[in-house]
Amino acid sequence: MESRRVEALADGIFAISMTLLVLEVHVPALPATATAGQLVTGLLQTWPKFAAYAGSFLILGVLWIGHHNQFQYIRRTNRPFLWMNIFFLMCVGFMPFCTALLGSFIWNRVATAVYGVSLLVTGLTLYGQWRYAAGHGLLGDDATPEIVRATGRRILLGTQGYLVALAISFLSPPIGLALYTLIPFFYLRRSRIDEHLVARGAQRSGG
Amino acid sequence: MESRRVEALADGIFAISMTLLVLEVHVPALPATATAGQLVTGLLQTWPKFAAYAGSFLILGVLWIGHHNQFQYIRRTNRPFLWMNIFFLMCVGFMPFCTALLGSFIWNRVATAVYGVSLLVTGLTLYGQWRYAAGHGLLGDDATPEIVRATGRRILLGTQGYLVALAISFLSPPIGLALYTLIPFFYLRRSRIDEHLVARGAQRSGG
Amino acid sequence: MESRRVEALADGIFAISMTLLVLEVHVPALPATATAGQLVTGLLQTWPKFAAYAGSFLILGVLWIGHHNQFQYIRRTNRPFLWMNIFFLMCVGFMPFCTALLGSFIWNRVATAVYGVSLLVTGLTLYGQWRYAAGHGLLGDDATPEIVRATGRRILLGTQGYLVALAISFLSPPIGLALYTLIPFFYLRRSRIDEHLVARGAQRSGG
Amino acid sequence: MESRRVEALADGIFAISMTLLVLEVHVPALPATATAGQLVTGLLQTWPKFAAYAGSFLILGVLWIGHHNQFQYIRRTNRPFLWMNIFFLMCVGFMPFCTALLGSFIWNRVATAVYGVSLLVTGLTLYGQWRYAAGHGLLGDDATPEIVRATGRRILLGTQGYLVALAISFLSPPIGLALYTLIPFFYLRRSRIDEHLVARGAQRSGG
Repeated sequence: MESRRVEALADGIFAISMTLLVLEVHVPALPATATAGQLVTGLLQTWPKFAAYAGSFLILGVLWIGHHNQFQYIRRTNRPFLWMNIFFLMCVGFMPFCTALLGSFIWNRVATAVYGVSLLVTGLTLYGQWRYAAGHGLLGDDATPEIVRATGRRILLGTQGYLVALAISFLSPPIGLALYTLIPFFYLRRSRIDEHLVARGAQRSGG
Repeated sequence: MESRRVEALADGIFAISMTLLVLEVHVPALPATATAGQLVTGLLQTWPKFAAYAGSFLILGVLWIGHHNQFQYIRRTNRPFLWMNIFFLMCVGFMPFCTALLGSFIWNRVATAVYGVSLLVTGLTLYGQWRYAAGHGLLGDDATPEIVRATGRRILLGTQGYLVALAISFLSPPIGLALYTLIPFFYLRRSRIDEHLVARGAQRSGG
Repeated sequence: MESRRVEALADGIFAISMTLLVLEVHVPALPATATAGQLVTGLLQTWPKFAAYAGSFLILGVLWIGHHNQFQYIRRTNRPFLWMNIFFLMCVGFMPFCTALLGSFIWNRVATAVYGVSLLVTGLTLYGQWRYAAGHGLLGDDATPEIVRATGRRILLGTQGYLVALAISFLSPPIGLALYTLIPFFYLRRSRIDEHLVARGAQRSGG
Repeated sequence: MESRRVEALADGIFAISMTLLVLEVHVPALPATATAGQLVTGLLQTWPKFAAYAGSFLILGVLWIGHHNQFQYIRRTNRPFLWMNIFFLMCVGFMPFCTALLGSFIWNRVATAVYGVSLLVTGLTLYGQWRYAAGHGLLGDDATPEIVRATGRRILLGTQGYLVALAISFLSPPIGLALYTLIPFFYLRRSRIDEHLVARGAQRSGG
């Protein structure tokens, strides 16, 4: 089974989940005749929703790049792999709910915990499907053992970060939340996988 | 007419329907100052919505894989086939409503019946368009009679399962619901079609 | 400028508009403990929403096939053509609103008129962009003058049908509505364009 | 890393944002038995929502064409570029909120300012990622220095327009709003980039 349509479904679900996040940012419930000052106050009070939108958009961006990178190497799919993907996408599609929950109850330990557990499960699924693909011959020859390890480690690192953030959020939701938001920036760093993909691309288009 | 854009529309409608399901899972209607305990209680009371989300996501996943598998063999489309696809996608796009209905009235025979009938019609449409494609020369040469039969049988099996679940749900909604949720797992089994597709792929990339 | 991404945007907007229609079909506002009988009554009273969903889904299906057929011949795009497409998609994206209006005020002349005018404008835009493409060398060589005429005529026929339905809906909304719903079925007929596309496909893959 | 899936994600997010805009245009809150006159009045009072829908759809159309044009030249992507794209898409996905705000508080300076600032940031991001791509060898050889400059200038021109409209909207929201709506029409003009792309296309398919 080709991987092209799996990617199409994944891109669709990512795009929609990322865009649906904004539906949770409601316009302040003020009369149409509200003054500028009232509207500013109304918008400022909505800050947890804005923060939740931006944070979740970035996190979904990280996950999308991770999924994207995996499929650079995946050559074949099979039924269990398809199902892992569907479960992964079910977690992705659940993010708008977690984001809405967090935006509504920003200082509530339960909301931060639901958000964190959801991220953990999503990260572990992404890791699991990578390990499965590597162990069942679904990757191309260019996925050297080193690349398989580096990719797996990179997914796990973020997931461990979410585990720590989750634990901390029980002690202090604000610090936990700050960590959730900072973890995506870790992925801005250039990785060994990037170098490999660039080198591979050069090799292909070159000699 | 090429099948590429039909697949694009189908992937889009599947992706959106699967993601819209989450809009029916509402954040508990509690004040922003709710305690952790109140939020836990509120979330636990929402369980039918979570269950309906997960169940419908899996079922749409099964249908998407089924549609995906059909298009591995479809080489041509014609106008009636396009219309069957549009009717099939109309059923897929109706799932968020059925899911919302079930999530709101989980123990109500009418909600489980609407859900079951909708699945039945969807499955029969998928079966019908496969039979039509096979009978009107829309399939490629690699779709041997055996594959045509095996694919049809596989779709019908699940549809028969939904028929049984529907009948049982009139006697007992809980058991009917449990069956609805279990049927997708039947599709986890490796099928003869998978083997055929793998063999065909190997043949193509190999000698 | 390639036409591939225009098609991708169009497929996306069609898929989302078709799927968003279902958000206007609300679950009956009944307590969770409603009896089966109450739920049946509640669902039956929602019939205009179901009808509006099905009707609009079919009409969008017709428009999508029309757009799809045009792009079988389009080889190039330019800026004005891109803008006509964006205007066309703006009409497509407006359909969920017209559908919601009709679903809420099914016997109101204004609702049926807004719906009809919207369909007219959409059809005329689709016709206009086809004429523009034909007149500005955006079509491939396989778009013979006969095909250009047949395609244009086919779009206009439906649009004229909507004009008639619109006029009738002022006299009698029920008959107007019935016509709106029947027009898509006219497009089920096999057209000369289909034969041409099939012949062209055979020629390509054949000798 | 290939640019194909970035385009797929972008097309998805554009398509969804453009389509979600319509969810902010609510059906008038009237009883189902409202007279034709009442419904007309109700719809006319909704005009700011219609205007906001049309204006934002056009503006997103402009941005989509701009993004589309950039990717005609982009051959490679890297991690920072991917992140700039995700930030750009975050701005795009935020447009439905800005549009809803404007539709609800059309004469309020704060709403027009939020809308304008959002457009400014979006435009600057699109400009920034183009400069980055040009400066880091992500473009193909056909992106001559002249094309790089012309494309950049074109994005900046619109962005400067939004800056002026923003400043004016503080003095007079109506004039500011009119400007927001007129700026997209500036992009209807044929640009040097179009000519280049057409020439390039002719060269490729020709000798």
